[in-house]
Amino acid sequence: MSTRRQLVLGILGGGQLARMLALAAAPLGVKSLVVDSAADACAGQVAPLVVADWTDYDALEHFARQVDVVTFDFENVPAETAHWLAERVAVFPAPRALAVAQDRLAEKTLFRECGLQTPDFKAIDTRQDLDLALAAIGAPAILKTRRLGYDGKGQFRIKSLADADAAWAALGAQAEAHGLILEAFVPFDRELSVIAVRSRDGEFRTWPLTQNWHTDGVLSLSLAPAPDIAGLQERATGLARTLAEKLDYVGVFALELFVKNGELLGNEMAPRVHNSGHWTIEGALTSQFENHVRAVLGMPLGDTSARGLSAMFNWIGELPDAAPVLEAVDAHWHDYGKQPRVGRKVGHATVCAPDADQLIERLSGVARALGRDQQAYPAVGKLMEKQ
Amino acid sequence: MSTRRQLVLGILGGGQLARMLALAAAPLGVKSLVVDSAADACAGQVAPLVVADWTDYDALEHFARQVDVVTFDFENVPAETAHWLAERVAVFPAPRALAVAQDRLAEKTLFRECGLQTPDFKAIDTRQDLDLALAAIGAPAILKTRRLGYDGKGQFRIKSLADADAAWAALGAQAEAHGLILEAFVPFDRELSVIAVRSRDGEFRTWPLTQNWHTDGVLSLSLAPAPDIAGLQERATGLARTLAEKLDYVGVFALELFVKNGELLGNEMAPRVHNSGHWTIEGALTSQFENHVRAVLGMPLGDTSARGLSAMFNWIGELPDAAPVLEAVDAHWHDYGKQPRVGRKVGHATVCAPDADQLIERLSGVARALGRDQQAYPAVGKLMEKQ
Ligand SMILES: Nc1ncnc2c1ncn2[C@@H]1O[C@H](COP(=O)(O)OP(=O)(O)OP(=O)(O)O)[C@@H](O)[C@H]1O
Ligand SMILES: Nc1ncnc2c1ncn2[C@@H]1O[C@H](COP(=O)(O)OP(=O)(O)OP(=O)(O)O)[C@@H](O)[C@H]1O
Repeated sequence: MSTRRQLVLGILGGGQLARMLALAAAPLGVKSLVVDSAADACAGQVAPLVVADWTDYDALEHFARQVDVVTFDFENVPAETAHWLAERVAVFPAPRALAVAQDRLAEKTLFRECGLQTPDFKAIDTRQDLDLALAAIGAPAILKTRRLGYDGKGQFRIKSLADADAAWAALGAQAEAHGLILEAFVPFDRELSVIAVRSRDGEFRTWPLTQNWHTDGVLSLSLAPAPDIAGLQERATGLARTLAEKLDYVGVFALELFVKNGELLGNEMAPRVHNSGHWTIEGALTSQFENHVRAVLGMPLGDTSARGLSAMFNWIGELPDAAPVLEAVDAHWHDYGKQPRVGRKVGHATVCAPDADQLIERLSGVARALGRDQQAYPAVGKLMEKQ
Repeated sequence: MSTRRQLVLGILGGGQLARMLALAAAPLGVKSLVVDSAADACAGQVAPLVVADWTDYDALEHFARQVDVVTFDFENVPAETAHWLAERVAVFPAPRALAVAQDRLAEKTLFRECGLQTPDFKAIDTRQDLDLALAAIGAPAILKTRRLGYDGKGQFRIKSLADADAAWAALGAQAEAHGLILEAFVPFDRELSVIAVRSRDGEFRTWPLTQNWHTDGVLSLSLAPAPDIAGLQERATGLARTLAEKLDYVGVFALELFVKNGELLGNEMAPRVHNSGHWTIEGALTSQFENHVRAVLGMPLGDTSARGLSAMFNWIGELPDAAPVLEAVDAHWHDYGKQPRVGRKVGHATVCAPDADQLIERLSGVARALGRDQQAYPAVGKLMEKQ
C-alpha cells in the first residue's frame, strides 16, 4: 500500500456556492481550497480559506501551487486573474468561456449564433445610443450593465420613453467601465433554466428543466422537473449542448430561458453552479455540485435524473424559523452560515415528494407553517394547473 | 437584522464519523470543532481541528469554551475526560451512557435488565476465571476485552477448550487494565442492527433495521431495510427505546443484534453514529449524521423513513477504483481522505434502488465491475431468497 495524495480543488470565491461545492467534493476524497477577500467568507467554515484579492498575485501563485484544478464560485472574477491562473494550473471553465458569460452582449450574440432567440437588444455606450436604441426597441425595456450584474443588480427598468433620463442617471456612469445593454422587456409566460454539465472529454448531461420565479430580480422559488413542458426539454437541452460545445465548456452551467407563446428566448448563461439547481442536492441522483467537481477533475459524470418532484425556497436577507422545515417530511434545510443583510442570499430549503399531489400538500404545509404562503404560491398554482 | 452567532458542535475524535457529522452539520448552519491527537485526522479536512490528547486539559478547556455541545466520534474517549468536559459544557450522549456502552459487561447486564437476551457471558479477571467460565459456557466461545475493543480488535476465538492457553496468552495481559469477558459463540442466522435516535426532550425514532455481514470481525456489507423481518422491527425498536430511556440517552446509537431461530440476542451497543447506518446518507429521508446533530443540539428530529433499498460496501485497507461506482445509477462514493493501512476503514459506497429487483441488478453490476462479487454476494443472495 503506497501513500496517496488527494486531489485539491481550488475555488475562486468563498460564498455559498463554494461552500456547497466543498461539501460535495469531500465524499469524493477531494480537498478544497478557497480564495476570498473576506476573512469570514462562509465557505471558510468547511474548507481552508486563503484571504486575498483577485490582484494579489503572490497569494494566487501560492494557491495555484497547492491545487490540481481551479474553478469559480464567483463569475465576476476578473478576466486577467483567470488568464494568469490558467497559465499555471488547469482552470475550468476556461477563461474564454467565462469571458463570454460575463458579458451580456457577447452572451446574447452567441445565443443567436447557436440558434437561440433573445429579447431584442442593443449595445449602449452613450446617452445618444440609449435614445436611438429606445426608439428602435420601444418601451418597456431594461437597461443593464454588460458586466458585473447579478441578482438583478445593475439594472433599470424603463417603463416609458420618459424614463430614459432616470435610467441614464442610474447607470450612465457605468457605461465606460462596464458597458451597457438595452433589452426589450419580454412579457414572458414562464421562466425556465437548464442546468447542464459537460466533462473534460465532452460528455454532456442536463438535469430536468427547472421553472423559476423571481422577486425584485432575485430568485425566490424553483420547481423541478418543470411541469407541462411538452417538447421544451429536448429543445433546451439541444441549445445548451450547442452552446457548451461552442465554448468548449467544462463544468456545470445554467442557461436561463424565457418562454413566450411556446418559444424559448435566451436570457443569460451563468458559468457555474446555479441557484436554480440547488434542488438537485436532494432531488436528483447526482447534485449539480457533485457533477461540477467530477467534471472539472476529469471523473465520470453521475446520473442527473430527478428522484421525484422538488421545490426550492430561497431565503433572502435573513432566515425564517427552521423548525417547520426540519419537522416536515423530505424537506431539507440549508443555512449558509452567513450574517443577515438586506437582499443577501442566506439559505434555502428544498421540499421533495414522489408526486405532484404530495408536493402540493408538503409545500403548502411548510409555507403555511413558515408564514410564507405567498412565496410558495406560484409553484403550488403551477402544480394544481396540471391536475 | 441583528448579527447572529452560529451553533458550534464539538466532536471528540476526528475520524470518518466526525467527518460525516461535520458534513451533515454544515447545512444546518452548525459549525464543527474537532479534537484529535493526530494532526492528519481526516475530519480536519472539513472542519477546524484541535490537535490534543484526551488528557491535555488546557487544550480541552479552550475547546469547551468554543463549543455549544460536545459529542463523540470515538467511543473510547476516557470516562474522566468525558466527565471533566460535562462539568463545563453540555455533553451528549452523557458520560454515564457512554460508560455503560464502553463496557461489554455493563452493557450486556443492562440488555438483560431491559428484556433483551444475550449470548451467555462471564466476567474474567484471572486465568482461573477463564477455566471456570469455559467449563460453564463451553466451546466455541469468544474471549474479549471488556473495554476498548472495536472492529473485532481485542478478541480471541476459542474453538475448543484446548485454546484456553492461547487465548490467555493473547489477552491475559489486558485482564487487569481493561477487564475481560467470555461470551458463548452464537451460530447466528443473521446479524441485524437498529440505528436509533433520541432527542433531548425524549423523542425517539429508529431507521428501518439493517442486515450486516462481517469479515474478520469488521463490517463488510449492509443491506437496508433488512428484508424478511416479520415482527422483528417492532421488537428491536421497543428494545432500543427501553435501553435509550434507561440511559436517558441523547443522540444516535446502534444496537447490534444476532438473530437465532427467530430470537433476538444483544451483541453490543455503539454509543454513536454507526458504520451500519452509513446507508442513511442517501437511503433515508434524514441521515443518522444529520439526526445526531439535530438531537444533541436540541433541534427537531427528521423523518427516518427509507427512500427505497440500499446496500453499503465497506472499503477496508485501501480504496478500489472509484469509476464503477461513479458511473452506476444511484450509487454513491465516500472516500474518507485517509491514508491506506491494513484493516483501516478508508471509505464506503452505497448503492440505492427503488426495489429489490433493481437493487440486485445495480449491486451485482457494481460488484462485478469492481471485482468484488464476493463482497456483494450475501446481500444479493438475501434479496434473491425473497423473490
Ligand atoms: N429582458 C427581460 N424581460 C423581462 N424580464 C427580465 C428581462 N431581463 C431580466 N428580467 C427579469 O429579471 C430577472 C433577473 O435578470 P437577469 O437574469 O438579467 O439578472 P442577473 O442580475 O444576471 O441575475 P441572476 O444572475 O441572479 O439570474 C430575470 O430572471 C427576469 O425575471
Ligand atoms: N458471541 C459471538 N458469537 C458469534 N459471533 C460473534 C460474537 N461476538 C462477536 N461476533 C462476531 O464478530 C463481530 C464483531 O464483534 P463485536 O461487535 O464484539 O466487535 P467490536 O470490536 O465491538 O466491533 P464493532 O464495534 O465494529 O461492531 C460481530 O459483529 C459478529 O459477527
